[in-house]
Amino acid sequence: MENHIYAADIASFEKQYRTNLINGLGGIKSALLVGTRGADGTNNLAIFSQIVHIGANPAMMGILHRPVSVEKHTYENILANGFFTLNHVAADKFKAAHQTSASYSRSQSEFEQCGFEPAFTNTVLAPYVKDSPLKIGLKIAEIIPIKSNGTILLVGSVEEIIVQADLIEAAGFIDLNKLKTILVHGLETYYKAEKMERLPYAKVNN
Amino acid sequence: MENHIYAADIASFEKQYRTNLINGLGGIKSALLVGTRGADGTNNLAIFSQIVHIGANPAMMGILHRPVSVEKHTYENILANGFFTLNHVAADKFKAAHQTSASYSRSQSEFEQCGFEPAFTNTVLAPYVKDSPLKIGLKIAEIIPIKSNGTILLVGSVEEIIVQADLIEAAGFIDLNKLKTILVHGLETYYKAEKMERLPYAKVNN
Repeated sequence: MENHIYAADIASFEKQYRTNLINGLGGIKSALLVGTRGADGTNNLAIFSQIVHIGANPAMMGILHRPVSVEKHTYENILANGFFTLNHVAADKFKAAHQTSASYSRSQSEFEQCGFEPAFTNTVLAPYVKDSPLKIGLKIAEIIPIKSNGTILLVGSVEEIIVQADLIEAAGFIDLNKLKTILVHGLETYYKAEKMERLPYAKVNN
Repeated sequence: MENHIYAADIASFEKQYRTNLINGLGGIKSALLVGTRGADGTNNLAIFSQIVHIGANPAMMGILHRPVSVEKHTYENILANGFFTLNHVAADKFKAAHQTSASYSRSQSEFEQCGFEPAFTNTVLAPYVKDSPLKIGLKIAEIIPIKSNGTILLVGSVEEIIVQADLIEAAGFIDLNKLKTILVHGLETYYKAEKMERLPYAKVNN
């Protein structure tokens, strides 16, 4: 049996029920840790699942940031120094990764609070997660407000990729089946993924 | 051992190698089938993995569309009639779902070509995938060009959700572990996901 839920139903739902339902519609996504550095030197770390591949040439990625009506360290830090990092994390660290979503104060580093060690390079002015097997350093390129609800798409250019050498295959593919990184559904239900198959470029059969 | 790859390296890579590498950076995501209806009545279906949760109240979702320098039926259809659907598909249908990415002509329906049956409602003027266990109907609300590379974020309001009744839990969560829908890494490597655990809202421990 199928349930039909309409816009008027959604608007009438109790707030938490609505959040749980709507946040889950888009499915399961890799959850990455976003590293930024505050003007005061604090190393900030926050889990994000709204990660967008913008383009390969030039290499660009985006993160969707919630409205900044309240204090938002990730956004403020990116505005302040222009850099952020994306870090894939092993599936067995999902509890520590989730804990970065707690409301720590500006001077508290989620690296220390949640048990991650920062790492730095000369290319990107933001902290990486040291033991992340796939780290991406980005420079902010475009800040795109979404008028419908005040969310913000932060688009960055890929300045640096730090990856375990054995994870890149000859054709450039990254083997995430070896990595076994974290995925999340909605804001709280964690998953791991298992490879089925790589398919060739699809062609019209005729 | 870690490889460090810089922006200049990325720019110098052979095109397909660069595409494979950069498309894989964002990780694994649910792949959904986007249904649209052309001005000529053709029912279009295309696989997308760049699905964005925009907000829960009002309920809005987005899809990132590639630059429209060449013929792009999904985009043209959404512009023409204002509606699109998102359809989760069972993991065992990943080959048929992938085949929707082939370059069919405007008058060829991917529903027929790839073996999906369309379904319609009075609320949304776009075709659903009939046997999809979780279908979402949206009305276009905002078309956001990304200047950096010409991609386009299409944001829609959720007008209708059609879901198997047994998949919604009491608190509103959708059980995707029961659904076992398709996930993809990059454009071609298909995955399925296994639930680890649902975690409570994270709080500062002190």
